Amino acid sequence: MVIPGSGELSPADRGVLYGEGVFETLHLRPDGPWLLNAHLDRLARSAALLELPLPPRAELTALAARAAQARTGGEGALRLIVTPATFYATVGAVPATARRQRREGIKLITADLGLTARPPWSLATAKTISYAENLAATRWAKDQGADDVLWLRADGHALEAPTASLIWLTGDTLCTVPPQQTGILPGTTAAHLLSRAPELGLRPEERMITAADLPATDAIWLASSLRGLAEARTLDGAARAASPWSPRLLALLGFDGS
Amino acid sequence: MVIPGSGELSPADRGVLYGEGVFETLHLRPDGPWLLNAHLDRLARSAALLELPLPPRAELTALAARAAQARTGGEGALRLIVTPATFYATVGAVPATARRQRREGIKLITADLGLTARPPWSLATAKTISYAENLAATRWAKDQGADDVLWLRADGHALEAPTASLIWLTGDTLCTVPPQQTGILPGTTAAHLLSRAPELGLRPEERMITAADLPATDAIWLASSLRGLAEARTLDGAARAASPWSPRLLALLGFDGS
Repeated sequence: MVIPGSGELSPADRGVLYGEGVFETLHLRPDGPWLLNAHLDRLARSAALLELPLPPRAELTALAARAAQARTGGEGALRLIVTPATFYATVGAVPATARRQRREGIKLITADLGLTARPPWSLATAKTISYAENLAATRWAKDQGADDVLWLRADGHALEAPTASLIWLTGDTLCTVPPQQTGILPGTTAAHLLSRAPELGLRPEERMITAADLPATDAIWLASSLRGLAEARTLDGAARAASPWSPRLLALLGFDGS
Repeated sequence: MVIPGSGELSPADRGVLYGEGVFETLHLRPDGPWLLNAHLDRLARSAALLELPLPPRAELTALAARAAQARTGGEGALRLIVTPATFYATVGAVPATARRQRREGIKLITADLGLTARPPWSLATAKTISYAENLAATRWAKDQGADDVLWLRADGHALEAPTASLIWLTGDTLCTVPPQQTGILPGTTAAHLLSRAPELGLRPEERMITAADLPATDAIWLASSLRGLAEARTLDGAARAASPWSPRLLALLGFDGS
């Protein structure tokens, strides 16, 4: 379902012609869009990187509220889209795949991005609608018999997944990759999870990890808005035991895991 | 001006939401769209990489013909766009910048893409509407006081520009970068130019060149549909004499250079 904000899509919109638009995907809950402010903050950062004027924040908040009302029942998926000519929202069900991956975990493979460092004009820290290559990477992972792919830098350090952040547990330290230093998208779900980790006695930390060191960690997850957390139950084909932390962390994030 | 093909843009179109669409830009001439068949061939290859169904070729040809009729006067710019929900064309004037760069040449800088090799899911060989990063690279070049940027692989080999192919002359050999081997977009203008080079006594060749070897070449151009050829009159700040081949090659391509 499409919830209009303002303006109209035009075939001459640079959002359509060049993918020059930004978006956010949010988890819709009975009490409203989850982590709305953090997502609106990131939308603003993405728009600034693209030199795209953003509607006033109050209008985006009002749009999200209207969209939330359009959803009845349990959880839902809210998407906010801003192009030069228009902004609007879409509301739908959380894809069955996302719910299954949250519940059962995923087969994760690693793959070299072939990248030593992002060039200075990179938009990788922005969530733009020039998103085709991200989705192509996920399709490629499925072609390999996996559910998702973890991107590695040319030196073997883990970066992010096409639509999710990497989280791992080492002892009592819950880790994610530092976005500033690596030029990856700052994960909204990941940042929130780490900020709340101390409530479960875990120490949050941003650090780097190589693919070679990942197998020895206590647990590996991908974090994203709709999946919440999806635990890697295989990594490059090697099975991993289910972590007792998965249900605890999902509960901390307010996902029922069902 | 927008020339409808079939279907309509929808806010839920994956072309809008994810940049999952393809496009081609063509030079409109009094006798019609230049190199139409080559551009339609590439559009088909781009769509296949994106797993995007394409309208029948006859419909695209008819659309291009209608668009060409909509243009009166001299040269024009034709764009063909295909998304999952619609296909259409836009027609407009050739940007003044393109005409100036064709006439006067460009200030070209080189920049490291930070890339060792493209990953297997890369869409870099497709011309998709997920184009924001290409345009961000051009904006970055302008911020550096240049007109355009030549992307280098991490090992220093030249690849392509964000919206153009690299051409250079060494003795009587007219060269471009091999697209298959490097995973760059196969240039339509570049391929046509090389196919016709023997008419001027030049030998066409696909080969690799490093940034270190570029200054010693006899001439450097960027080739693209609307600019035709834009000669690098400075390379990373170093001035280069105008090549006598620029007007000859532009004339060979049917550009009047005015």
